[in-house]
Amino acid sequence: MRITGFGVVAKDGNRLDYVASGCIKTADGELPQRLKTILDSIGEVIATYRPDQAAIEKVFVNVNPQSTLLLGQARGAAICALVAQNLPVAEYTALQVKQAVVGNGHAKKEQVQDMVRRLLKLEGVPQADAADALACAICHAHGGQGLGNLATAGYRVKNGRLV
Amino acid sequence: MRITGFGVVAKDGNRLDYVASGCIKTADGELPQRLKTILDSIGEVIATYRPDQAAIEKVFVNVNPQSTLLLGQARGAAICALVAQNLPVAEYTALQVKQAVVGNGHAKKEQVQDMVRRLLKLEGVPQADAADALACAICHAHGGQGLGNLATAGYRVKNGRLV
Repeated sequence: MRITGFGVVAKDGNRLDYVASGCIKTADGELPQRLKTILDSIGEVIATYRPDQAAIEKVFVNVNPQSTLLLGQARGAAICALVAQNLPVAEYTALQVKQAVVGNGHAKKEQVQDMVRRLLKLEGVPQADAADALACAICHAHGGQGLGNLATAGYRVKNGRLV
Repeated sequence: MRITGFGVVAKDGNRLDYVASGCIKTADGELPQRLKTILDSIGEVIATYRPDQAAIEKVFVNVNPQSTLLLGQARGAAICALVAQNLPVAEYTALQVKQAVVGNGHAKKEQVQDMVRRLLKLEGVPQADAADALACAICHAHGGQGLGNLATAGYRVKNGRLV
Protein backbone atom coordinates (compact mmCIF):
# COMPACT_ATOMS: atom_id res chain seq x y z
CA MET A 1 0.00 0.00 0.00
CA ARG A 2 2.74 2.45 0.95
CA ILE A 3 5.25 1.58 -1.77
CA THR A 4 4.55 -0.23 -5.04
CA GLY A 5 7.64 -1.05 -7.07
CA PHE A 6 7.46 -1.36 -10.84
CA GLY A 7 9.92 -2.43 -13.49
CA VAL A 8 9.81 -2.51 -17.28
CA VAL A 9 12.09 -4.64 -19.43
CA ALA A 10 12.26 -5.26 -23.18
CA LYS A 11 12.78 -8.77 -24.48
CA ASP A 12 14.15 -9.36 -27.96
CA GLY A 13 14.89 -13.01 -28.61
CA ASN A 14 17.00 -14.02 -25.63
CA ARG A 15 18.20 -10.48 -25.08
CA LEU A 16 16.78 -8.57 -22.15
CA ASP A 17 17.11 -4.82 -21.74
CA TYR A 18 16.26 -2.47 -18.94
CA VAL A 19 13.61 0.09 -19.84
CA ALA A 20 12.42 1.70 -16.62
CA SER A 21 11.72 1.11 -12.97
CA GLY A 22 10.61 3.00 -9.93
CA CYS A 23 8.36 3.18 -6.90
CA ILE A 24 4.87 4.50 -6.49
CA LYS A 25 4.40 5.99 -3.07
CA THR A 26 0.98 6.75 -1.67
CA ALA A 27 0.68 9.51 0.84
CA ASP A 28 -1.19 8.94 4.05
CA GLY A 29 -4.83 9.74 3.58
CA GLU A 30 -8.14 8.22 2.64
CA LEU A 31 -8.01 4.72 1.25
CA PRO A 32 -9.90 5.44 -2.00
CA GLN A 33 -7.47 8.24 -2.92
CA ARG A 34 -4.48 6.05 -2.14
CA LEU A 35 -5.85 3.33 -4.39
CA LYS A 36 -6.44 5.93 -7.11
CA THR A 37 -2.78 6.96 -6.84
CA ILE A 38 -1.73 3.35 -7.48
CA LEU A 39 -4.28 2.93 -10.30
CA ASP A 40 -3.34 6.19 -12.04
CA SER A 41 0.42 5.82 -11.56
CA ILE A 42 0.55 2.31 -13.02
CA GLY A 43 -1.78 3.58 -15.75
CA GLU A 44 0.85 6.24 -16.54
CA VAL A 45 3.64 3.66 -16.63
CA ILE A 46 1.56 1.61 -19.10
CA ALA A 47 0.74 4.66 -21.23
CA THR A 48 4.41 5.65 -21.33
CA TYR A 49 6.05 2.29 -22.05
CA ARG A 50 3.17 0.35 -23.65
CA PRO A 51 4.10 -3.11 -22.40
CA ASP A 52 2.25 -6.06 -23.88
CA GLN A 53 2.50 -8.35 -20.89
CA ALA A 54 2.55 -7.91 -17.14
CA ALA A 55 3.61 -9.96 -14.14
CA ILE A 56 3.00 -9.42 -10.45
CA GLU A 57 4.34 -11.14 -7.39
CA LYS A 58 2.00 -13.37 -5.44
CA VAL A 59 1.94 -12.09 -1.91
CA PHE A 60 2.03 -13.85 1.35
CA VAL A 61 -0.60 -13.01 3.87
CA ASN A 62 0.54 -11.05 6.83
CA VAL A 63 0.08 -12.07 10.43
CA ASN A 64 -1.84 -8.84 10.91
CA PRO A 65 -5.27 -9.21 9.24
CA GLN A 66 -5.70 -5.45 8.81
CA SER A 67 -2.36 -5.30 6.96
CA THR A 68 -3.42 -8.23 4.81
CA LEU A 69 -6.62 -6.42 3.89
CA LEU A 70 -4.69 -3.24 3.01
CA LEU A 71 -2.18 -5.21 0.97
CA GLY A 72 -5.03 -6.97 -0.84
CA GLN A 73 -6.67 -3.67 -1.74
CA ALA A 74 -3.41 -2.21 -3.04
CA ARG A 75 -2.71 -5.36 -5.05
CA GLY A 76 -6.28 -5.25 -6.40
CA ALA A 77 -5.68 -1.67 -7.57
CA ALA A 78 -2.39 -2.61 -9.24
CA ILE A 79 -4.00 -5.53 -11.08
CA CYS A 80 -6.95 -3.34 -12.10
CA ALA A 81 -4.57 -0.86 -13.74
CA LEU A 82 -3.18 -3.75 -15.81
CA VAL A 83 -6.43 -5.50 -16.77
CA ALA A 84 -8.09 -2.15 -17.54
CA GLN A 85 -5.61 -1.99 -20.45
CA ASN A 86 -6.29 -5.63 -21.31
CA LEU A 87 -2.78 -6.69 -20.38
CA PRO A 88 -2.43 -10.40 -19.57
CA VAL A 89 -1.23 -10.65 -15.97
CA ALA A 90 0.99 -13.50 -14.81
CA GLU A 91 1.57 -14.20 -11.14
CA TYR A 92 4.73 -15.62 -9.58
CA THR A 93 5.60 -16.37 -6.00
CA ALA A 94 8.66 -14.70 -4.50
CA LEU A 95 10.20 -18.17 -4.47
CA GLN A 96 9.70 -18.55 -8.23
CA VAL A 97 11.10 -15.09 -8.88
CA LYS A 98 14.20 -15.66 -6.76
CA GLN A 99 14.68 -19.10 -8.26
CA ALA A 100 14.51 -17.62 -11.76
CA VAL A 101 16.76 -14.66 -11.12
CA VAL A 102 19.23 -15.85 -8.49
CA GLY A 103 18.83 -19.60 -8.93
CA ASN A 104 17.96 -19.89 -5.26
CA GLY A 105 14.40 -19.54 -4.05
CA HIS A 106 15.59 -18.37 -0.69
CA ALA A 107 18.05 -15.74 -1.87
CA LYS A 108 18.42 -12.57 0.15
CA LYS A 109 17.17 -9.19 -1.00
CA GLU A 110 20.74 -8.04 -1.70
CA GLN A 111 21.39 -11.04 -3.93
CA VAL A 112 18.26 -10.26 -5.95
CA GLN A 113 19.29 -6.63 -6.30
CA ASP A 114 22.80 -7.62 -7.38
CA MET A 115 21.60 -10.15 -9.96
CA VAL A 116 19.07 -7.67 -11.37
CA ARG A 117 21.86 -5.11 -11.69
CA ARG A 118 24.13 -7.59 -13.48
CA LEU A 119 21.51 -9.19 -15.73
CA LEU A 120 20.22 -5.80 -16.90
CA LYS A 121 23.71 -4.25 -16.97
CA LEU A 122 22.74 -1.40 -14.67
CA GLU A 123 25.34 0.98 -13.32
CA GLY A 124 23.92 1.02 -9.83
CA VAL A 125 21.83 -1.23 -7.65
CA PRO A 126 18.12 -0.48 -8.02
CA GLN A 127 16.06 0.38 -4.93
CA ALA A 128 14.79 -2.82 -3.29
CA ASP A 129 11.12 -2.57 -4.36
CA ALA A 130 12.07 -1.58 -7.91
CA ALA A 131 14.57 -4.47 -7.97
CA ASP A 132 11.85 -6.89 -6.86
CA ALA A 133 9.62 -5.67 -9.66
CA LEU A 134 12.41 -5.95 -12.23
CA ALA A 135 13.17 -9.44 -10.92
CA CYS A 136 9.52 -10.39 -11.43
CA ALA A 137 9.69 -9.02 -14.98
CA ILE A 138 12.89 -10.98 -15.65
CA CYS A 139 11.25 -14.13 -14.27
CA HIS A 140 8.27 -13.62 -16.58
CA ALA A 141 10.46 -12.78 -19.58
CA HIS A 142 11.98 -16.22 -19.16
CA GLY A 143 8.68 -17.96 -18.85
CA GLY A 144 8.98 -18.27 -15.12
CA GLN A 145 11.98 -20.49 -15.78
CA GLY A 146 15.55 -20.26 -14.66
CA LEU A 147 18.53 -18.53 -16.14
CA GLY A 148 18.94 -21.04 -18.96
CA ASN A 149 17.68 -18.70 -21.66
CA LEU A 150 19.50 -15.63 -20.47
CA ALA A 151 22.08 -13.91 -22.59
CA THR A 152 24.71 -13.90 -19.92
CA ALA A 153 27.39 -12.46 -22.16
CA GLY A 154 30.10 -14.99 -21.48
CA TYR A 155 29.18 -15.57 -17.86
CA ARG A 156 28.31 -19.01 -16.59
CA VAL A 157 25.69 -19.53 -13.97
CA LYS A 158 26.72 -21.53 -10.94
CA ASN A 159 24.57 -21.89 -7.85
CA GLY A 160 22.51 -19.04 -9.10
CA ARG A 161 25.45 -16.74 -9.54
CA LEU A 162 27.06 -15.48 -12.69
CA VAL A 163 30.68 -16.63 -12.61
CA MET B 1 -14.91 -11.75 -4.49
CA ARG B 2 -17.66 -14.14 -5.55
CA ILE B 3 -20.61 -11.76 -5.25
CA THR B 4 -20.51 -7.96 -5.20
CA GLY B 5 -23.85 -6.31 -4.51
CA PHE B 6 -24.62 -2.84 -5.82
CA GLY B 7 -27.47 -0.42 -5.32
CA VAL B 8 -28.34 2.95 -6.85
CA VAL B 9 -30.74 5.44 -5.26
CA ALA B 10 -31.77 8.96 -6.20
CA LYS B 11 -32.04 11.63 -3.54
CA ASP B 12 -34.17 14.70 -4.10
CA GLY B 13 -34.45 16.83 -0.96
CA ASN B 14 -35.49 14.34 1.69
CA ARG B 15 -37.09 12.06 -0.85
CA LEU B 16 -35.27 8.85 -1.70
CA ASP B 17 -36.08 6.71 -4.73
CA TYR B 18 -34.91 3.34 -5.85
CA VAL B 19 -33.07 3.38 -9.15
CA ALA B 20 -31.35 0.03 -9.57
CA SER B 21 -29.63 -2.78 -7.74
CA GLY B 22 -28.09 -6.15 -8.44
CA CYS B 23 -25.18 -8.50 -7.95
CA ILE B 24 -21.96 -8.91 -9.85
CA LYS B 25 -20.86 -12.51 -9.87
CA THR B 26 -17.36 -13.52 -10.83
CA ALA B 27 -16.88 -16.95 -12.28
CA ASP B 28 -14.17 -19.18 -10.97
CA GLY B 29 -10.95 -18.53 -12.80
CA GLU B 30 -7.79 -16.50 -12.73
CA LEU B 31 -7.71 -13.69 -10.21
CA PRO B 32 -6.88 -10.86 -12.67
CA GLN B 33 -9.88 -11.77 -14.85
CA ARG B 34 -12.18 -11.91 -11.84
CA LEU B 35 -11.01 -8.46 -10.74
CA LYS B 36 -11.58 -7.21 -14.30
CA THR B 37 -15.17 -8.49 -14.12
CA ILE B 38 -15.75 -6.44 -10.96
CA LEU B 39 -14.00 -3.38 -12.42
CA ASP B 40 -15.88 -3.51 -15.73
CA SER B 41 -19.26 -4.34 -14.23
CA ILE B 42 -19.19 -1.49 -11.74
CA GLY B 43 -17.91 0.69 -14.58
CA GLU B 44 -21.05 -0.26 -16.53
CA VAL B 45 -23.32 0.55 -13.60
CA ILE B 46 -21.66 3.98 -13.35
CA ALA B 47 -21.91 4.56 -17.10
CA THR B 48 -25.60 3.61 -17.04
CA TYR B 49 -26.80 5.52 -13.97
CA ARG B 50 -24.18 8.27 -13.68
CA PRO B 51 -24.16 8.61 -9.89
CA ASP B 52 -22.30 11.57 -8.43
CA GLN B 53 -21.39 9.95 -5.14
CA ALA B 54 -20.51 6.47 -3.96
CA ALA B 55 -20.41 4.61 -0.67
CA ILE B 56 -18.95 1.24 0.22
CA GLU B 57 -19.14 -0.86 3.31
CA LYS B 58 -16.04 -1.17 5.45
CA VAL B 59 -15.27 -4.82 5.77
CA PHE B 60 -14.23 -6.90 8.67
CA VAL B 61 -11.21 -9.04 8.27
CA ASN B 62 -11.84 -12.72 8.08
CA VAL B 63 -10.28 -15.31 10.34
CA ASN B 64 -8.85 -16.91 7.22
CA PRO B 65 -5.97 -14.70 5.96
CA GLN B 66 -6.29 -16.01 2.40
CA SER B 67 -9.97 -14.99 2.36
CA THR B 68 -9.05 -11.59 3.77
CA LEU B 69 -6.53 -11.11 0.97
CA LEU B 70 -9.12 -12.11 -1.66
CA LEU B 71 -11.72 -9.82 -0.14
CA GLY B 72 -9.19 -6.98 -0.07
CA GLN B 73 -8.40 -7.44 -3.74
CA ALA B 74 -12.09 -7.50 -4.71
CA ARG B 75 -12.76 -4.41 -2.61
CA GLY B 76 -9.74 -2.72 -4.18
CA ALA B 77 -11.19 -3.43 -7.63
CA ALA B 78 -14.62 -2.07 -6.65
CA ILE B 79 -13.09 1.14 -5.27
CA CYS B 80 -10.90 1.50 -8.37
CA ALA B 81 -14.00 1.41 -10.59
CA LEU B 82 -15.39 4.32 -8.56
CA VAL B 83 -12.27 6.48 -8.27
CA ALA B 84 -11.44 5.89 -11.95
CA GLN B 85 -14.58 7.95 -12.63
CA ASN B 86 -13.57 10.49 -9.99
CA LEU B 87 -16.49 9.59 -7.75
CA PRO B 88 -16.01 10.52 -4.10
CA VAL B 89 -16.17 7.31 -2.09
CA ALA B 90 -17.51 7.25 1.47
CA GLU B 91 -16.98 4.26 3.74
CA TYR B 92 -19.36 3.04 6.44
CA THR B 93 -19.11 0.11 8.79
CA ALA B 94 -21.92 -2.46 8.76
CA LEU B 95 -22.80 -1.14 12.20
CA GLN B 96 -23.24 2.40 10.87
CA VAL B 97 -25.32 1.15 7.94
CA LYS B 98 -27.62 -0.94 10.12
CA GLN B 99 -27.91 1.88 12.64
CA ALA B 100 -28.89 4.30 9.88
CA VAL B 101 -31.36 2.00 8.13
CA VAL B 102 -32.82 -0.14 10.90
CA GLY B 103 -31.96 2.01 13.90
CA ASN B 104 -30.11 -0.90 15.42
CA GLY B 105 -26.47 -1.56 14.66
CA HIS B 106 -26.91 -5.23 15.35
CA ALA B 107 -29.99 -5.79 13.21
CA LYS B 108 -30.36 -9.07 11.38
CA LYS B 109 -30.01 -9.43 7.62
CA GLU B 110 -33.79 -9.91 7.25
CA GLN B 111 -34.49 -6.67 9.13
CA VAL B 112 -32.15 -4.78 6.81
CA GLN B 113 -33.81 -6.29 3.75
CA ASP B 114 -37.27 -5.48 5.09
CA MET B 115 -36.40 -1.86 5.94
CA VAL B 116 -34.77 -1.36 2.54
CA ARG B 117 -37.93 -2.70 0.90
CA ARG B 118 -40.15 -0.37 2.92
CA LEU B 119 -37.98 2.76 2.71
CA LEU B 120 -37.62 2.43 -1.06
CA LYS B 121 -41.21 1.21 -1.53
CA LEU B 122 -40.17 -1.94 -3.33
CA GLU B 123 -42.69 -4.63 -4.17
CA GLY B 124 -40.40 -7.47 -3.15
CA VAL B 125 -37.47 -8.02 -0.83
CA PRO B 126 -34.17 -7.42 -2.63
CA GLN B 127 -31.56 -10.18 -2.67
CA ALA B 128 -29.38 -9.95 0.47
CA ASP B 129 -26.20 -8.53 -1.15
CA ALA B 130 -28.19 -6.03 -3.22
CA ALA B 131 -30.13 -5.05 -0.07
CA ASP B 132 -26.85 -4.48 1.80
CA ALA B 133 -25.66 -2.22 -1.01
CA LEU B 134 -28.94 -0.31 -1.07
CA ALA B 135 -28.75 0.02 2.71
CA CYS B 136 -25.26 1.49 2.38
CA ALA B 137 -26.57 3.94 -0.23
CA ILE B 138 -29.47 4.91 2.05
CA CYS B 139 -27.03 5.41 4.93
CA HIS B 140 -24.88 7.67 2.76
CA ALA B 141 -27.89 9.57 1.40
CA HIS B 142 -28.66 10.51 4.97
CA GLY B 143 -25.16 11.58 5.76
CA GLY B 144 -24.41 8.39 7.62
CA GLN B 145 -27.07 9.48 10.08
CA GLY B 146 -30.22 7.80 11.27
CA LEU B 147 -33.74 7.82 9.95
CA GLY B 148 -34.46 11.38 11.11
CA ASN B 149 -34.35 12.88 7.63
CA LEU B 150 -36.27 10.15 5.90
CA ALA B 151 -39.55 10.81 4.21
CA THR B 152 -41.36 8.03 5.96
CA ALA B 153 -44.76 8.87 4.53
CA GLY B 154 -46.70 9.02 7.75
CA TYR B 155 -44.80 6.27 9.53
CA ARG B 156 -43.09 6.85 12.82
CA VAL B 157 -39.79 5.21 13.64
CA LYS B 158 -39.64 3.32 16.88
CA ASN B 159 -36.73 1.14 17.88
CA GLY B 160 -35.57 1.25 14.33
CA ARG B 161 -38.88 0.08 12.94
CA LEU B 162 -41.42 2.02 11.00
CA VAL B 163 -44.63 1.91 13.00
